[in-house]
Amino acid sequence: MKKINPSIIYPIENWQVSESEYTLETNQRSETIFTVGNGYIGIRGCTEETMPELENHTLPGTYINGFYETAPIIYGEAAYGYAENHQTILNVPNALPFEITVDGEKITLFSGKITDYSRKLSFKTGLFERQFTWTSEKTGKQLKIIFSRLASFTRKHVAAIKINIQPVNFMAADIQVTSSLQGAVTNQEHDGDPRAGAAFSGQVLNTEKVIQQSGILGLFQRTTSSKLEIASGIKHSIPGSVSQKQDFWSESWQFDGSTSIEISKFIGYATSEKDNIQTLCTELEKASKAGFAQLVQEQVDYLDLFWNRADIGVTGDDALQQALRFNAFHLLQSVGRDGRTNIAAKGVTGEGYEGHYFWDTEIFIFPFFAFTQPEIAKKLLEYRYSILPNAKKRARDLACSGALFPWRTINGEEASAYYPAGTAQIHINADIMHALKLYTEVTNDTDFLNEKGLEMLIETSRFYMDYGDFVEGRGFTINGVTGPDEYTALINNNTYTNMMVKDQLEFLLTSLTDEARIKFNISDIEIKNWTLAAKNMYIHRTNSALIGQDDSFLNKGKWPFETTREDQYPLLLHFHPMKIYQKQVLKQADLILAMVLQSERFSDEEKQVNYDYYEPLTTHDSSLSPATHAIIAAELGRMEQAVSFFYYTARTDLDDYHHNVKDGVHTAAMAGSWLTIVYGFAGLRIKNGELHFQPRLPDKWTGYQFRITFQGRIIEVQTTTSGTNFTLIQGNSIQLFSDGNPIQL
Amino acid sequence: MKKINPSIIYPIENWQVSESEYTLETNQRSETIFTVGNGYIGIRGCTEETMPELENHTLPGTYINGFYETAPIIYGEAAYGYAENHQTILNVPNALPFEITVDGEKITLFSGKITDYSRKLSFKTGLFERQFTWTSEKTGKQLKIIFSRLASFTRKHVAAIKINIQPVNFMAADIQVTSSLQGAVTNQEHDGDPRAGAAFSGQVLNTEKVIQQSGILGLFQRTTSSKLEIASGIKHSIPGSVSQKQDFWSESWQFDGSTSIEISKFIGYATSEKDNIQTLCTELEKASKAGFAQLVQEQVDYLDLFWNRADIGVTGDDALQQALRFNAFHLLQSVGRDGRTNIAAKGVTGEGYEGHYFWDTEIFIFPFFAFTQPEIAKKLLEYRYSILPNAKKRARDLACSGALFPWRTINGEEASAYYPAGTAQIHINADIMHALKLYTEVTNDTDFLNEKGLEMLIETSRFYMDYGDFVEGRGFTINGVTGPDEYTALINNNTYTNMMVKDQLEFLLTSLTDEARIKFNISDIEIKNWTLAAKNMYIHRTNSALIGQDDSFLNKGKWPFETTREDQYPLLLHFHPMKIYQKQVLKQADLILAMVLQSERFSDEEKQVNYDYYEPLTTHDSSLSPATHAIIAAELGRMEQAVSFFYYTARTDLDDYHHNVKDGVHTAAMAGSWLTIVYGFAGLRIKNGELHFQPRLPDKWTGYQFRITFQGRIIEVQTTTSGTNFTLIQGNSIQLFSDGNPIQL
Repeated sequence: MKKINPSIIYPIENWQVSESEYTLETNQRSETIFTVGNGYIGIRGCTEETMPELENHTLPGTYINGFYETAPIIYGEAAYGYAENHQTILNVPNALPFEITVDGEKITLFSGKITDYSRKLSFKTGLFERQFTWTSEKTGKQLKIIFSRLASFTRKHVAAIKINIQPVNFMAADIQVTSSLQGAVTNQEHDGDPRAGAAFSGQVLNTEKVIQQSGILGLFQRTTSSKLEIASGIKHSIPGSVSQKQDFWSESWQFDGSTSIEISKFIGYATSEKDNIQTLCTELEKASKAGFAQLVQEQVDYLDLFWNRADIGVTGDDALQQALRFNAFHLLQSVGRDGRTNIAAKGVTGEGYEGHYFWDTEIFIFPFFAFTQPEIAKKLLEYRYSILPNAKKRARDLACSGALFPWRTINGEEASAYYPAGTAQIHINADIMHALKLYTEVTNDTDFLNEKGLEMLIETSRFYMDYGDFVEGRGFTINGVTGPDEYTALINNNTYTNMMVKDQLEFLLTSLTDEARIKFNISDIEIKNWTLAAKNMYIHRTNSALIGQDDSFLNKGKWPFETTREDQYPLLLHFHPMKIYQKQVLKQADLILAMVLQSERFSDEEKQVNYDYYEPLTTHDSSLSPATHAIIAAELGRMEQAVSFFYYTARTDLDDYHHNVKDGVHTAAMAGSWLTIVYGFAGLRIKNGELHFQPRLPDKWTGYQFRITFQGRIIEVQTTTSGTNFTLIQGNSIQLFSDGNPIQL
Repeated sequence: MKKINPSIIYPIENWQVSESEYTLETNQRSETIFTVGNGYIGIRGCTEETMPELENHTLPGTYINGFYETAPIIYGEAAYGYAENHQTILNVPNALPFEITVDGEKITLFSGKITDYSRKLSFKTGLFERQFTWTSEKTGKQLKIIFSRLASFTRKHVAAIKINIQPVNFMAADIQVTSSLQGAVTNQEHDGDPRAGAAFSGQVLNTEKVIQQSGILGLFQRTTSSKLEIASGIKHSIPGSVSQKQDFWSESWQFDGSTSIEISKFIGYATSEKDNIQTLCTELEKASKAGFAQLVQEQVDYLDLFWNRADIGVTGDDALQQALRFNAFHLLQSVGRDGRTNIAAKGVTGEGYEGHYFWDTEIFIFPFFAFTQPEIAKKLLEYRYSILPNAKKRARDLACSGALFPWRTINGEEASAYYPAGTAQIHINADIMHALKLYTEVTNDTDFLNEKGLEMLIETSRFYMDYGDFVEGRGFTINGVTGPDEYTALINNNTYTNMMVKDQLEFLLTSLTDEARIKFNISDIEIKNWTLAAKNMYIHRTNSALIGQDDSFLNKGKWPFETTREDQYPLLLHFHPMKIYQKQVLKQADLILAMVLQSERFSDEEKQVNYDYYEPLTTHDSSLSPATHAIIAAELGRMEQAVSFFYYTARTDLDDYHHNVKDGVHTAAMAGSWLTIVYGFAGLRIKNGELHFQPRLPDKWTGYQFRITFQGRIIEVQTTTSGTNFTLIQGNSIQLFSDGNPIQL
């Protein structure tokens, strides 16, 4: 495995992440880390005060999940069926700005003397707090300033900021505070890294209306190309009566410095509602009426319930403990839960990967929600169902029947501009169906399966049947695909893909109802073909336990790791794809991932042999890779490797392993840390609809614990040095298995 | 094989192509057919008179071989090592325009009554003639107008037009003639077909100087981005003294209609010379001094010599006879012969494929020149040597040592914007080396081999050794390539590629000199590796005579030909590449081409079995395909198929099989017709440096004949129904073989 040299950036704390120093060089990274989000709104942890010193060191970003601009994809050489449009998550009007002046002097982090600085995000309260003491170098006057910020978990359209200004060493001053909404925002410019940046430049939000009613200052805007609407606004609340001035999109107040000042700013965004202006105004009214304290209380209550089902921990390693909670919290902040949105690779924390949804959702993130917040998991599947019409159309683009889900998308259209590592990853269909199967097993929600799930299952299977071929002497083959490993492209019979499709077809055959057969016009021949394909799915096994990642992988030369310099990783930024594809080298887990998801289809010997073969060939240049390896390493009892990989996935963002946290968090890696504990160290697998564990505890730790929700129950799993305890926290009695032994709870 | 329905467009004539009707719908195609060129200048067969009616039915194009504009290639998703710039052959100032008015009425093909119209191009005189009789519908006055045009084969920088205006039924009229040079020209706009159109729009030639000296009207211009210079100009000559008016770039004359009018217009272009303006003026002076008649005489003399070595014919099929000469003539018109240019896929007849040079040169066109005009063949290799520095740099882009020639280029830089069907075709190296070997065998020119050839041979071999791998149990493998068949991409061990590389390595090992070993720092280990790779080159043979096109081809499903409609060809315009790549379907000959070029490496049984297997899977969507199939069909005695394929390649342009002659001729298909006669029906192969023939005569024909130049000799081969005669036309006695029997000439 590639060596990582972790170095702790933020103090290790139990229920929060914080910093006590402000440095320009790392500010943009911290803005990502301190993002507040509610799955719809995301506001990066930027300062309320604007300062010229920040230029190039800040990404003042507020994002709305699913709100994007489109731009035509330009190809050097186009071809039939290529994806047509970029979709890019949009930076929306910035509601942060506060300007504070004292005796005419503007308070910023660079204008006076700053002491007692801190920025912190609490996982228990959902509150982001930033504070510092400012001392004028001219007058010596000192003020303590505290900003509290939240994106309401209970009010989709609402965020809020409370600013508290305390005079420290004076009784009188001319204090002026201005709060505004900035509508003229742009996205980040592309800087050459294919993983970051937008396809257009300049402002694409056009203001159609200024909103001014009931103290709300707002804007109604429309995107230039995608024509999506957004209403954004602010409304202030301030105790007592103060001198006040209101402008189009700012409001100013004058204070005499004799007492503390407190201003609450309620922030609203509405998109894709029937009446966005109305929604905005109603929600802002309600929020301001409730007040900031009430909003905080709602956050606390919501998070109490969340942690009751989702808390997870390691004892004996506080850095991992912090990371597990940081990750779970950020997942909650990132996940769309309205059935029309999903969870982007960067959540709502940045513009990396253009805010697209990938398979990351279903394979890495979905289990976390399925086992802790199944109602959110269902919404993720509903999103997929909502884009099924696009997926059907996409299958036609490939001259196939059925449906092919887009490799990367926001609005349901394929947005991958490089099909060999995009559209060719047709395993996306099976990945989504894997999530459907998991959801069904975890919840027993057959209603969803029958109402929406089956249609997806049938149509995606139809695509595979059409794209694949029965080839004499081989069985059912699926050629011309790219598997999970993006350092190998356009190959035949990717084992991961074929096994996942086999599983999906088996799931389909057992789930099929008579109603569905009639509704979807399924003939006996079609069922026979599904059966045959599932039974005779081609897997590239060899005459040893070694399995080919695909038909050709084992015949390639090995990547020259010995002559590859440290600064040449990730390979994709330093080598031509042709050169990478022609060698035995992996970006990320591929067959190893199949060993996690299709555990029972591999013998123990196969797991060992293939792990030993593929792991040394894997660069882990993808943040998706370490968790998978951690899980299998744990299963194989390679505890040191497992812990090492676990560190990698768990602290990817907190320790900025990929040096790109400034562009946003890595939601899949975050979820990977949960997966590693639950699937890896606790060894959870579902077999025949029942829970099986195989708990292992690394030497370095004294224990780990987590809770899962399963078929209406909440079960706590607690491993210590003296063994594992399973506790039924809620729900009816159930039988589960630990190391194969039945346990009745 | 795909059915073609040939339909003769132009009358079948022996030494010319002509039309006697002018139709707007097909005009652009005819402009291509009637192009005059000299390998440097190309002028499409457009009208001298300009008419609004022509809009969208004309491509007024004049091209200079090797003169191009660049533009950055924009990728939907860029990656390391991608080609950076488009290069596009440029439409240069148009020197055709003549405007004729009679009594104020402008003469065009649409303004009066047109009779006796014709347009013709003679292969014996190299002259393009256009004539018609025009009758005024107002006055009834009738004039006969004849335009003669040539691009001088003996004067690289010169073209010329003579206009002859004859009063038919009147003695007096106010006749005004204006001739001009139009500097404001643009390229064709991209129309969605990836095979046509430029990467930029608008005018990119910027005029820096107006040339006015010694009666020359000219322009000195520079391209916006590539910064290349071009000087273009016209100079007129007119017998007697007439009233004349000169403008910046036009000249007008007044006539009284009493006698015939004759005006000669000498046209010059100079690029990439030390002093382009000086060259232009000198060459125009000399040409106008010589006069039009002298230029015609030079053409005739030049073509006499050309046909003496290059004439080729079929007796018993006049359509084929015409095509063979049309093709040979156009190849001569298209081929760059200054060592700094090459032959574009469309020659100098259009903008298709952006004027790029491909492997078409070495594999399809080169043999024609090597066996008929070896001095031109040498220039083609010198061009490759001139871009060897670029090829070395390109190899570095792929993290390899040695040199990799660009798949498509003008200036030596890779210009392929889709690497799976571009850069991945690394067989380009071996193709060029195949031409080097052929040139050396045909000419015995070891000086060229030692001075320039060996360096290319060594550096391209070094690339292969680095890109390929010795893989245990397989030998030397070359993975991650695309072979000639572009409907299969990024595969391993393409048989064509591997065999060509094997041959190149063997050629290198026998050609290597002690001087070269020292000069190029070649170690014993390097030689040992070349030897091992050549000896153990992996070829994907099966346990039958069937050979895999590559490692995976035979394991794929077959293309659904039965459900593919006629209007869905070419597949590349109607199916996603992924879908095409995953099936057994070929765009063009691949293994079959290896059977032509590496004939001795296949048994007779292998040739039969593989032809029968691959041919039905081949769409021939590439114009490169039919000739290759014709050759092997002839070798296998499948004479009907051979003739059918021969028709396809021979009359590709005359009968416009691909419906895109409007964008330019298909030089490789043209050369394919020569190849089919010589390699196919006459069965020419070089074995151990000696000529071997295996002549066969299709039933339909009464004979065929051609001449080849070989090691200083000219040999005529004439097959009739009573057998084949070999005649030594020039040079020393030589032994050759026919059907294995030695013949002494």
